[in-house]
Amino acid sequence: MLNIAITAGGTSENMDGVRKITNVSTGSLGWHCLEAVFEYMQRQKKTDFHLYYIITETAIRKELSEEQNTFATFIPVTDAESVYLAVDKLTQETSIDFFIHSMAVSDFTFAYAASVKKMAEEICSFRTNDGKTEAKVMEVLENPWCKYNVNEKISSDENLVIGLKRTKKVIPLIKQNNASTFLVGFKLLRDVDEDQLIESAAKLTVQNDCDMVFANEVSHVSENDHRGILIQNGKIIARPTGKKVIAETIINNLFK
Amino acid sequence: MLNIAITAGGTSENMDGVRKITNVSTGSLGWHCLEAVFEYMQRQKKTDFHLYYIITETAIRKELSEEQNTFATFIPVTDAESVYLAVDKLTQETSIDFFIHSMAVSDFTFAYAASVKKMAEEICSFRTNDGKTEAKVMEVLENPWCKYNVNEKISSDENLVIGLKRTKKVIPLIKQNNASTFLVGFKLLRDVDEDQLIESAAKLTVQNDCDMVFANEVSHVSENDHRGILIQNGKIIARPTGKKVIAETIINNLFK
Repeated sequence: MLNIAITAGGTSENMDGVRKITNVSTGSLGWHCLEAVFEYMQRQKKTDFHLYYIITETAIRKELSEEQNTFATFIPVTDAESVYLAVDKLTQETSIDFFIHSMAVSDFTFAYAASVKKMAEEICSFRTNDGKTEAKVMEVLENPWCKYNVNEKISSDENLVIGLKRTKKVIPLIKQNNASTFLVGFKLLRDVDEDQLIESAAKLTVQNDCDMVFANEVSHVSENDHRGILIQNGKIIARPTGKKVIAETIINNLFK
Repeated sequence: MLNIAITAGGTSENMDGVRKITNVSTGSLGWHCLEAVFEYMQRQKKTDFHLYYIITETAIRKELSEEQNTFATFIPVTDAESVYLAVDKLTQETSIDFFIHSMAVSDFTFAYAASVKKMAEEICSFRTNDGKTEAKVMEVLENPWCKYNVNEKISSDENLVIGLKRTKKVIPLIKQNNASTFLVGFKLLRDVDEDQLIESAAKLTVQNDCDMVFANEVSHVSENDHRGILIQNGKIIARPTGKKVIAETIINNLFK
């Protein structure tokens, strides 16, 4: 039995029950990867596989046939924390052979909101002469007393300061839980040239033990004209164009 | 000729080209209003109307028939600023009879991102004894020197402070540009009881000269079980349930 996992979509970090921090990811590339897996398996007449699809609320999801549905398990997630828990659980419980981590997981989650005025007051309230002021200012900037309560309505009458704290990285979990998983990582950067893309993909490969990386620049990402480079063992193995072709190229190289 | 305008969806404030601040609005209620307008006009056999539909990128949009399309103009928008410009232009150029402002327009837009550490350093760098420190701290919190440049990649290695600044309110434009427009406002609140909803709707009515307000609480908003109250002249005139029924109730009361 071949177990394949795909993560898709952009996570969404809740701010106050109404507002949220998201990103530009639509989940479209992830869905094309799912379709490419089904096409590959059909072509090869293989039925001994299962697909785990970890999907965010706003990500694209199309109808599958009844037969396809028996080969797929959908795992819904919302924010970065829920992705961490879902990936940890899946990779501990199931021996995943191929993991395609195309989801854009937020590096940050919401910590607090506070009015600029109240923050300034709080920062100025404790001025000391013991040389520890900077550390105390940092403490306020990380977690102020004057922050809005979780259920409090944020006033729209004043400018705000929002604190964001780092989330736990999801990608290292995959190989930690199963060193033999073949891991495909994705790198989306902005305003970089190809050399920088390759460098960044190389860093991702080393840091998280990726076996293949698809790297792309944000201005080259659109529904109809998506371009990027597929890198394996430090070399560019393909330059696919179009989400469908990108997905097929990844899958065909995966199962080669 | 009857001119009807509908705004729908949630705006999206760009942070760094990849991340953005959005809200929970899907644009579904706005679309149901459009459909209710078409149904009403068909029932009344009226063809002397035009519908202006101001829609955000991520809002729900379904196919219209070729005939329906001749009665509708779609105006795409992205962030709060683009909504302000689009509504101002439309209401100045066209005499809108009914304006259904169901869009969730962000009260805030992105001002800057900065690392907590650098912010603390900057705040501590100018400590003065002239009694103006609080004003200077506020200045830093509104617009720090140490902020990331527009095209700079935000490092995911440190906790962040994000500054948000108020956007220009869109709703006052509508009556300012045309006092005779019938204006339907929407109020979405969190963790309030019905009295507070009514109070808040009354405030919206007075502040922005709304002729009708649909008020709802966020836990009562879902695709299949959306509830709220429709208020006119300070009285609850309906308690519709379900987005389709809510839209029909608004439209039928509008054209009554």
